[in-house]
Amino acid sequence: MKPYQEMTKEELLEEKKQLDAEYRRYQMRGLQLDMSRGKPSAEQLDLSMEIMDVLHSGVDLACEDGTDCRNYGVLDGIHEAKVLIGDMIECHPDNIIIYGNSSLNIMYDTISRSMTHGVMGSTPWCKLDQVKFLCPVPGYDRHFTITEHFGIEMINVPMLETGPDMDMVEKLVAEDEAVKGIWCVPKYSNPQGITYSDETVRRFARLKPAARDFRIYWDNAYGVHHLYDIDQDNLVEIFAECKRAGNPDMVYKFCSTSKISFPGSGLAAIATSANNLEDIKKQLFVQTIGYDKVNQLRHVRFFKDIHGITEHMRKHADILRPKFEMILDLFDRELADRGVGSWYRPKGGYFICYEAMDNCAKEIVSKAKKAGVVMTPAGATFPYGKDPKDSVIRIAPTYPSLEDLEVATRIFVVCVKLVSIEKFLNN
Amino acid sequence: MKPYQEMTKEELLEEKKQLDAEYRRYQMRGLQLDMSRGKPSAEQLDLSMEIMDVLHSGVDLACEDGTDCRNYGVLDGIHEAKVLIGDMIECHPDNIIIYGNSSLNIMYDTISRSMTHGVMGSTPWCKLDQVKFLCPVPGYDRHFTITEHFGIEMINVPMLETGPDMDMVEKLVAEDEAVKGIWCVPKYSNPQGITYSDETVRRFARLKPAARDFRIYWDNAYGVHHLYDIDQDNLVEIFAECKRAGNPDMVYKFCSTSKISFPGSGLAAIATSANNLEDIKKQLFVQTIGYDKVNQLRHVRFFKDIHGITEHMRKHADILRPKFEMILDLFDRELADRGVGSWYRPKGGYFICYEAMDNCAKEIVSKAKKAGVVMTPAGATFPYGKDPKDSVIRIAPTYPSLEDLEVATRIFVVCVKLVSIEKFLNN
Repeated sequence: MKPYQEMTKEELLEEKKQLDAEYRRYQMRGLQLDMSRGKPSAEQLDLSMEIMDVLHSGVDLACEDGTDCRNYGVLDGIHEAKVLIGDMIECHPDNIIIYGNSSLNIMYDTISRSMTHGVMGSTPWCKLDQVKFLCPVPGYDRHFTITEHFGIEMINVPMLETGPDMDMVEKLVAEDEAVKGIWCVPKYSNPQGITYSDETVRRFARLKPAARDFRIYWDNAYGVHHLYDIDQDNLVEIFAECKRAGNPDMVYKFCSTSKISFPGSGLAAIATSANNLEDIKKQLFVQTIGYDKVNQLRHVRFFKDIHGITEHMRKHADILRPKFEMILDLFDRELADRGVGSWYRPKGGYFICYEAMDNCAKEIVSKAKKAGVVMTPAGATFPYGKDPKDSVIRIAPTYPSLEDLEVATRIFVVCVKLVSIEKFLNN
Repeated sequence: MKPYQEMTKEELLEEKKQLDAEYRRYQMRGLQLDMSRGKPSAEQLDLSMEIMDVLHSGVDLACEDGTDCRNYGVLDGIHEAKVLIGDMIECHPDNIIIYGNSSLNIMYDTISRSMTHGVMGSTPWCKLDQVKFLCPVPGYDRHFTITEHFGIEMINVPMLETGPDMDMVEKLVAEDEAVKGIWCVPKYSNPQGITYSDETVRRFARLKPAARDFRIYWDNAYGVHHLYDIDQDNLVEIFAECKRAGNPDMVYKFCSTSKISFPGSGLAAIATSANNLEDIKKQLFVQTIGYDKVNQLRHVRFFKDIHGITEHMRKHADILRPKFEMILDLFDRELADRGVGSWYRPKGGYFICYEAMDNCAKEIVSKAKKAGVVMTPAGATFPYGKDPKDSVIRIAPTYPSLEDLEVATRIFVVCVKLVSIEKFLNN
């Protein structure tokens, strides 16, 4: 197939005619499809149904150390849950606090605490004239919503194939004391599916921030969310790397089982240094008596150990792989030669990211909507919802059935082509 | 029995001699008893074990409206949980947000949000020179810990038999714009077991605060925690009362099922006006995708309706009543005529409060400890841990067995008598 750029006006018009007809045919079907939601499908949730059976009235609800999980107590999580989550994120159980059901909530609370009480004795951020966060883009909209909510200025940092542009990160962090953090989804990133390279992680660990309360907000949301059994990305464990580099307090690692067991009914955790943990626990003690230990126990009894999680994630992969491969194969066949956009081929995570030609994303999303396909709003993956090039579109393949997803992807491809051709025709 | 005040020095010394001997005998037993913890006993927790059976892999985990409780979504709680909690706290389901497992956490988050974002558009409290809270005393230490954590100045307001001293509350609230809230445990109060009178609630609803972001923090922790089936305290429902008085936005009601099902694994909720809810949800949307809906469903399926909760609380009462009555009867027999302190006779809740002679509480608690009985630290029921008269001692009868509790109470009575006699001898 010829790239559109090399086509004559007549060829483009002929192609457009055919695509218009195809688009109309889809519109006539009155479809209602959704590729916007980064949530597991019912089929995936069914994989975890037996977690509902491991605890019942005939079972002892006590921890290995005898703690009655039904009663008050244990601020930072039961030990066996720390071991399980620790193995999952490659951290020692002593460096972990198990929270409630949402890692987003932990991140929010972490920023909120820094606003009102600072970080390990630093000036509370609400007393400062300016607080800034670095935001690798495209990124996770919910991160940006938190920082925007607290009036924190967000600075875009481009994502490269190896992770965030580290030249820029190193410079901004070293020069500006107002820069207090950076949002990272280091593995199978949302939305591009990029895993930070070894060098990127090592450079992160060796940052020389001007602000002593600068922290890396390491949201390892997709740490075990591989699509393949052998062909997996590997991420250097950052906390150990920070310790080696003499920066043990510089990172907060966040994770959850939301996309492992049940979203909303899973476990969320933070892993960080002893100094940070002490700082956090001082505040956490004021905030709560403790989180849901019965649900912690439920997860431990269901998964048993990290091997149980690995086996479980294989089943998720079996459901997700065909969905990702269908989209990527269709893109390869239909779009690769056209010169109208690019994408990565993620080996895990929850998203595929289509980077269209400049000034096309909004129009593609809008066109798809008119044919019954809901996409994540263009711009959503950028701070303040503003994609400066209007080119990034996030695709969430997990929730729809493979059949629906294929129709939705075909419609999306037609929309990409049509909007791109119109650009060429108008230039 | 003669009041100690009317005894001669010789009589006091003779009494002291006998008490000293009794105290020694207890000490020799090397006991380890605990009357400090306001938590349910294992026997009480056993009452809820069947809540672990209502959901299992063979059961549909969908709400009445079809929502899959296993997946993301529903920020403010599933409808049927709002109905259940609404009936429990006499509020319309539309006025309720179901949170996670801890009402303390909701209260913390409420204050934290007010610090960083104000209340319905008011100046964020962290930008103000001074923020003050009224604290009816004695009260719940965890409330005071939250306000202290945020640097909020706490002003003691004496508790009367009818609730907080409303003359003082009305005056302080009306005169000082820095007064932004008051902590209330309006029913079977912690620690005295007082229920606010109808007049007190009506005066609360008719407060004329100088600060438009003043709110009543109404922690109805013991709303259904009666000891008796007929002989119950009645609390006027404050939200309806506030609406009648033209102050619909003035109250936040907090509650949880922590002492109904399992502490740490229950449901917590806030009830308040539509305006307040809108303000809260704007922030809550940033903080989380949603709370544990599976656990919400579990509670609904277990209790079914408010009648289910009432029946369940009867079983709790059957376990708690003998404990409360044993202590109160022993106090009546051993202490009532001595003129060395006073207490209320709560009809519900989790505590009994012994108000000793001035400057005696610390010494009594310390003496009890040396005989193997742990009490809540003297002062804990006051802001900053400072009981100005050093007279209040909180007694938590729920956790120990009746047998242990009786021994502990007898030791406590001996300690009260000994410390009081020493006071009389030294004056």
